[in-house]
This record gives sequence, structure tokens and C-alpha cells, in this order.
Amino acid sequence: MKLKYTGKTKDVYALEDGNYLLQFKDDVTGTNGVFDPGANEVGLTVEGAGRAGLRVTKFFFETLKEKGIPTHYIDADIDKKTMTVKPAEVFGEGLEVICRYRAVGSFLRRYGMYAKEGQPLDAFVEVTLKDDERGDPPISEDALAMLGILSKDEYRVLKELTQQIGNVVKEELAKKEIELYDIKFEFGRTGADNQIVLIDEISGGNMRAYQNDAYIEPLELEKRFL
Amino acid sequence: MKLKYTGKTKDVYALEDGNYLLQFKDDVTGTNGVFDPGANEVGLTVEGAGRAGLRVTKFFFETLKEKGIPTHYIDADIDKKTMTVKPAEVFGEGLEVICRYRAVGSFLRRYGMYAKEGQPLDAFVEVTLKDDERGDPPISEDALAMLGILSKDEYRVLKELTQQIGNVVKEELAKKEIELYDIKFEFGRTGADNQIVLIDEISGGNMRAYQNDAYIEPLELEKRFL
Repeated sequence: MKLKYTGKTKDVYALEDGNYLLQFKDDVTGTNGVFDPGANEVGLTVEGAGRAGLRVTKFFFETLKEKGIPTHYIDADIDKKTMTVKPAEVFGEGLEVICRYRAVGSFLRRYGMYAKEGQPLDAFVEVTLKDDERGDPPISEDALAMLGILSKDEYRVLKELTQQIGNVVKEELAKKEIELYDIKFEFGRTGADNQIVLIDEISGGNMRAYQNDAYIEPLELEKRFL
Repeated sequence: MKLKYTGKTKDVYALEDGNYLLQFKDDVTGTNGVFDPGANEVGLTVEGAGRAGLRVTKFFFETLKEKGIPTHYIDADIDKKTMTVKPAEVFGEGLEVICRYRAVGSFLRRYGMYAKEGQPLDAFVEVTLKDDERGDPPISEDALAMLGILSKDEYRVLKELTQQIGNVVKEELAKKEIELYDIKFEFGRTGADNQIVLIDEISGGNMRAYQNDAYIEPLELEKRFL
């Protein structure tokens, strides 16, 4: 087992059988000690955050598997805080794909001239580059194709998967009377046919959720959800 | 004749026959006295800038008319620095539509991880909101439709017109051995059928052009071109 990459919220190891092992950590992204799913730095370390994030991720990846939605997930070990996944290649240097149900965060900062805080957005999908130095800029379907990051056909698949998965998460949260405002995903290509699959994780740290119009912190969200 | 709007580089008057008169000024956009077509403030005032800009605009709008490409242009009076145009309604609070032939400016600031300075971009089209306060954010086709600014059908027309007009400008500049790197346009809806037409102007202040790999300032560009 060989360490391949040290991420903000998890480490990635290569396994001998060609698969990968994700080691979840207790760090969450944020700024000045306040959680922010869009932040590029580790904002705080919370005891139990890694295990709670993995529990939620396991739940959603297994739910997606039942529904036939492709992911890189193989299995998870909650005690060890690890998840085994298939190898996948990210698009370019990595993209974040956001699905929005209500206008908050960077959407509102950009489009506040046309959108009110909290207004419904109907599973709106947008893509941003993972590029800390340039503030994770949004990028269009045309630019992704022109720069050789993602073909037009792949964009179509990516957008459809994003809305399908966003809707699954939204429905599952709704069962606990939690409302999903937005969520971000990562995707990659896997296998000989370059199938597009969901990668990384689905946990409180990737989404903004509200209950009775009050924002719920990731760990609290995971507690109420599980 | 009634003053309707005072812009950064021109004033707009309503005429009694329902058309509008654009009064070109000698102000150009920029920051700290240096021209920048993407800047939101008047950076400097240059004697003769208004008249030179109008001359170039007149040339291009008349060239587009000959080619059957729709604009709001009726006629121009170079001495008075005025242009008469049909009434048109902008999209939302106004959009800028950029056509890029080489990677410079905000494209490079956003996508520098994937693009080298000056690399060819094949008439790449992107749209930004006119919103000084929020730094003129880029916006996708999907977001424009969702926010009720521009329908999907209108986007298709807008993109096609942008590339057609960009190519006309590029070809005309090439005749003087000037290379167009990027250009920004404004469009609006006009007439009972809401036809999409080019509005505003096409002058040195709307584009970045180079000769022998050296950037040409707007006034110098207009001098060399005419």
C-alpha cells in the first residue's frame, strides 16, 4: 500500500490489486475556523468528522449502486475510516460539479443582480475548475471542450448524472426533514471504456443543508441524517 | 431630444421619431490611466477618441449591413460624433458577449492552468453580466436561461452572430496586417418580433489587437485601420 496523494480531507493510497484506498481524516474545509464547503483550506479539525463523513458516503454510494448509478465505490470500513474504490482518472487537473436547488454561496455572489437569496434553482448544474490559485473559476461547456478537459458528449453525461445524484441526496435528506440547498461532486473516467462515474465522497462537507430555514453544520447534519 | 443615459464612453438621447442618438465621448475605459477594454471605469480622456471610435464603428456597422448581419445602426454623423440607432432592449440589465481568438485578459486569468498566453482559441464565445459591483461575472447558457435573461434559442442566435461578426472584424483587420485577439459586443432585441441585433459600437475600445506580436492601443489601432 503506497501513499499517492495527501488531500485536504483524506489521503489516497494505491493498493496492490490496482484499486485505491481512501483514508478519511478529521479535517474539514473552511476559513478561520468556520466550515465552508467551497473553501480551499482546512478550516478546522473535528473529532469524529472522518468517520461520520465516511458513514454518510457509504450510505449514499450504496444507495446509488442500488439505483444503477455508476460510482467508483467498492466497499468501506467504518472502524478504520477507509473506503476502497476503483481507479479513476479525473478530468484535466480536476473539476467540481455543483448542483443547486436554492441560490446561496458563490452563485449568489456572482448572480445576485438576478437572484434573491434562497430562491429555488431547479437542480441547476455548474462546473468549476479545481484551481486554488485562481479561486476555482466557473467554466462553460464550450470552454471545457475547447481546452480538451471534457468533450461535449461527456458534458451531457456529467450534467445528467449530477442531477440524478443530486436528486437522490435531496430525497434522502427530505425523509429526515432536511432540505438540500446545494451539493458538489467530483467525477472521473474509469475502465477501458472511460465510463464517467462519481468519485470522492458524498458527506456533510460537500453540501449545504437546512432544517426549518436554519443552516445545519456538516457534523450536525450527519448526526441528524444517520 | 432627451438625455436618457450617461455612459462611460457615450451618452444616449431619445429622438422624437422613436429612434436613439448616441453621442460619442473622448473618454475610454481603463485603470490608472492605462487602457483596458475590460475595465469598468473611465481610465483616461483622449482628444479625438470619440470621433475615431465612431469612424471605426460606422465602417463596421455598414460592412455588417452589406453582409446582411442585423444591427441597430441607422446612420452616423462623424463631425457631430453622433450615431442614430433603432430602439433595442438589452438582455436583463445588459450582457457583454466576448469572442476570443487568442488567450489573453480575463480568459487567461481564469483558465491559465489550461491555456498558455496567446494560444489560439477558435472564435470562442463567452458571456459576462454587466455588473460592476460583482466584477462582470461570466455566466453560462443554462444560468442565462434559468434566470430569465436569455432563452436557449436566443443563446444559439447570439453565439452564431458573435462568431460571424467577430470573423468580419478579424478579416477586415487582417487586411491591414493587424491581428484580432479578442473583441466584446453588446446585443439587444428590436422590433415586434424581438429580433436579436448587434448594438452599441465596434471600435478600438472593444477589442485587443496586435501587430507583429505587439499590442496596439485603441487610438493607434483606429489610426492604422482607417
